[in-house]
Amino acid sequence: MNDNHIVASFDRDLESIQATMIKMGGLVEQALADSAQALRKRDDALAQTIRRGDKVIDDLDIVLKSDAARLLALRSPTAKDLRLVLAVMEISSHLERCGDYAKNIAKRTIAMSGAPAIEGTLSDMARMSAFVETMVRDALDAFIQRDPVKAAEIIARDAEADQIYNTLFRSFLTHMMEDHKNITVGMHLHFIAKNIERVGDHATGIAEQTIYAVTGALPEDDRPKQDNTTSALLESDV
Amino acid sequence: MNDNHIVASFDRDLESIQATMIKMGGLVEQALADSAQALRKRDDALAQTIRRGDKVIDDLDIVLKSDAARLLALRSPTAKDLRLVLAVMEISSHLERCGDYAKNIAKRTIAMSGAPAIEGTLSDMARMSAFVETMVRDALDAFIQRDPVKAAEIIARDAEADQIYNTLFRSFLTHMMEDHKNITVGMHLHFIAKNIERVGDHATGIAEQTIYAVTGALPEDDRPKQDNTTSALLESDV
Repeated sequence: MNDNHIVASFDRDLESIQATMIKMGGLVEQALADSAQALRKRDDALAQTIRRGDKVIDDLDIVLKSDAARLLALRSPTAKDLRLVLAVMEISSHLERCGDYAKNIAKRTIAMSGAPAIEGTLSDMARMSAFVETMVRDALDAFIQRDPVKAAEIIARDAEADQIYNTLFRSFLTHMMEDHKNITVGMHLHFIAKNIERVGDHATGIAEQTIYAVTGALPEDDRPKQDNTTSALLESDV
Repeated sequence: MNDNHIVASFDRDLESIQATMIKMGGLVEQALADSAQALRKRDDALAQTIRRGDKVIDDLDIVLKSDAARLLALRSPTAKDLRLVLAVMEISSHLERCGDYAKNIAKRTIAMSGAPAIEGTLSDMARMSAFVETMVRDALDAFIQRDPVKAAEIIARDAEADQIYNTLFRSFLTHMMEDHKNITVGMHLHFIAKNIERVGDHATGIAEQTIYAVTGALPEDDRPKQDNTTSALLESDV
């Protein structure tokens, strides 16, 4: 078997695990969009569908990891080829956790059914959800295109997701302070908002893997953390 | 270079990344213990030390991943050897996130300084923290000993961590309902409790990697989820 054959085999196998990754990405984006709609429309049936659907994403993560392990064993890739395989595995872990967040949002949506929502927050939540969903999609595109510049741009975007979260957090806290009947729903909505914000962190993680795969350097996490709700809590404490 | 040399080289390299993993484990256990003490004693200086210390854990994760990538490239391990390397990489990710949780706990402890705690909850938090800290230590031991039976026992233990969290959650919610001046601290403590509970989930993930490495099967996540605070919120809504 000459080198061309070896290269062709590796490329084919990498294509295969990348295809699984892209499939996971599509399911995660759908789960995030559905979880936002289920929350906004208070659609418990849709929420139940999201909960059940997460297992498919979890199973794809397991399939991808074992396919990648087989690829590593059979092809023994090195340098950039090795980094690409390792990056796909890390991205798969990020996507699997994004799926968990969509599931958690669906669970809390069901738990909230019946309880009145806090006025005006659901549209902000939907906006934030659409924002991080786009981050995930763009982060996967940046990886497929092996584009570290685009990836760096997505990492910078995470600060905006954090800002939307901070605004929402203050709004929840204010409503909970004003009327203790808002406490239960406020806790739910806050959990949901935090889950959405974490999806943005995982999109950032996916983008970091692109930079690692292409450049060989895994950027250290020195992004300024924009979640300043700890201080927000203190302010609201006054 | 004959097979014995290859085996010896692989074992030496695996030992080396395992040593990094064990070092990370020790730092994570210390960070968790310190975060519990900083919370209980309201020790902001200690909390600041934990925040700064997390970077060391993050850096070790990056070192381990690149050493593991080099090992995969140089030694091209297969079968169980390959699974062991992949498992160490996954465990490193779990430990890195546990370090993040300790840092988050420290950040919220600082944010709470000055605000009065909710009576009686801090000792339960410390108990829960010690419980999951032991889970992490035992999960690493089970991996070092390549003991899937011990690993399965740790996975079963996670339900108890979830139960402690559920009890704490109800307690926070009750206090927040009773007196809205408890809302801010209640939100902090709830976040902290959730972070501690998540450390238990990562100890479970470490244990699952041991089963994967030894048996070749990555157990699907079909553990009954014990965090039933969504229903707790509904109950408390009445």
